[in-house]
Amino acid sequence: MKPAITSKNLCSIIFAVPLGLLFTSATNAAEQQTNSTHARFDKKGQLIRPSGYREWIFIGAPLTPNDMNDGKAAFPEFHNVYIDPGSWDHWKKTGEFRDGTVIVKELVSVGGKQAPSGNGYFQGDYIGLEAMVKSKHHLPDANGNWGFFRFTIENSPQLHKSASAQPEENCMACHQAKAAKDQMFLQYYPVLRAAAGKGEQGTGR
Amino acid sequence: MKPAITSKNLCSIIFAVPLGLLFTSATNAAEQQTNSTHARFDKKGQLIRPSGYREWIFIGAPLTPNDMNDGKAAFPEFHNVYIDPGSWDHWKKTGEFRDGTVIVKELVSVGGKQAPSGNGYFQGDYIGLEAMVKSKHHLPDANGNWGFFRFTIENSPQLHKSASAQPEENCMACHQAKAAKDQMFLQYYPVLRAAAGKGEQGTGR
Repeated sequence: MKPAITSKNLCSIIFAVPLGLLFTSATNAAEQQTNSTHARFDKKGQLIRPSGYREWIFIGAPLTPNDMNDGKAAFPEFHNVYIDPGSWDHWKKTGEFRDGTVIVKELVSVGGKQAPSGNGYFQGDYIGLEAMVKSKHHLPDANGNWGFFRFTIENSPQLHKSASAQPEENCMACHQAKAAKDQMFLQYYPVLRAAAGKGEQGTGR
Repeated sequence: MKPAITSKNLCSIIFAVPLGLLFTSATNAAEQQTNSTHARFDKKGQLIRPSGYREWIFIGAPLTPNDMNDGKAAFPEFHNVYIDPGSWDHWKKTGEFRDGTVIVKELVSVGGKQAPSGNGYFQGDYIGLEAMVKSKHHLPDANGNWGFFRFTIENSPQLHKSASAQPEENCMACHQAKAAKDQMFLQYYPVLRAAAGKGEQGTGR
């Protein structure tokens, strides 16, 4: 009697299923890595300090050094600012910040003001970390659903492991009043401006 | 007679080969994307302008504004400096610049000196692009096999499509004499310093 399932079509069945699973699995893993939000909150509702952000997309480096602010800069020295990769992809496509966007601002001391290339400002060491996160779920009542978080411990090389959103008067009041778009000071971030809705055209010249 | 190849082991053979190929192929594609050098030279030996570099790894933003250099800065205003991803991976593992490393420096005008966050320097628009490339093949006689390339067209928003290596006295003399490591001014690049040979530990705090 001829078997209903031959070795040939048995192979096809066995072969097709795991291959399909494999492709689905690989695609999902890649998409999750890119598209999943890096905004992670603990059980108390505090934002867990993001990691690996120096491999995210750099968007700008505003500088408000102490010596230009009577020694009392609100945000001392360099800020290296990054957006998470999935939200960058969304920004390139749409020119909008998606729910779950994480913007990290790493504070860097002024290491020097004179170099072989001339007089100026040159980055020294890491002195702090802040983030802003857009989350409907965690920040339902905030303007644009943005929250501002500070991991810096003053006069310490350490950082907090998690942080609560800052009171509205600390950050939001100024961002709401002065920022060019959706609480972001887009006017100081050429990387974001060049890429908004422009896809790959915005990634270089 | 029992067949030498049963449907079961026939499947195992057929199944194992394409799966192995598939994994090899996927791994190779990913490795090539990450590890292949972005240094591309045309038939005349000129470096073709890199693309997509705003998605590379940001390493620092030295600033030598005109107003701190008697209006004659050698490198006007902000420099946004990036390293290509494959060479970044190599740097994280070894603390060395591999053959094929591309460092891009995008020049950005000072857009303003006053913002809601304080007095300082804030990025404006793109005004130029330079690169340094390490290549034994293309720069066999240069110090560390590094070459320096300038795509900027003065007073124009356009850039050259390709560029020849600059004469030694234009860039190398200073880099050779003053740079902290392998012609790179590592002293101004905390991102590189933190990651040298440290793997993922160097990607954030």
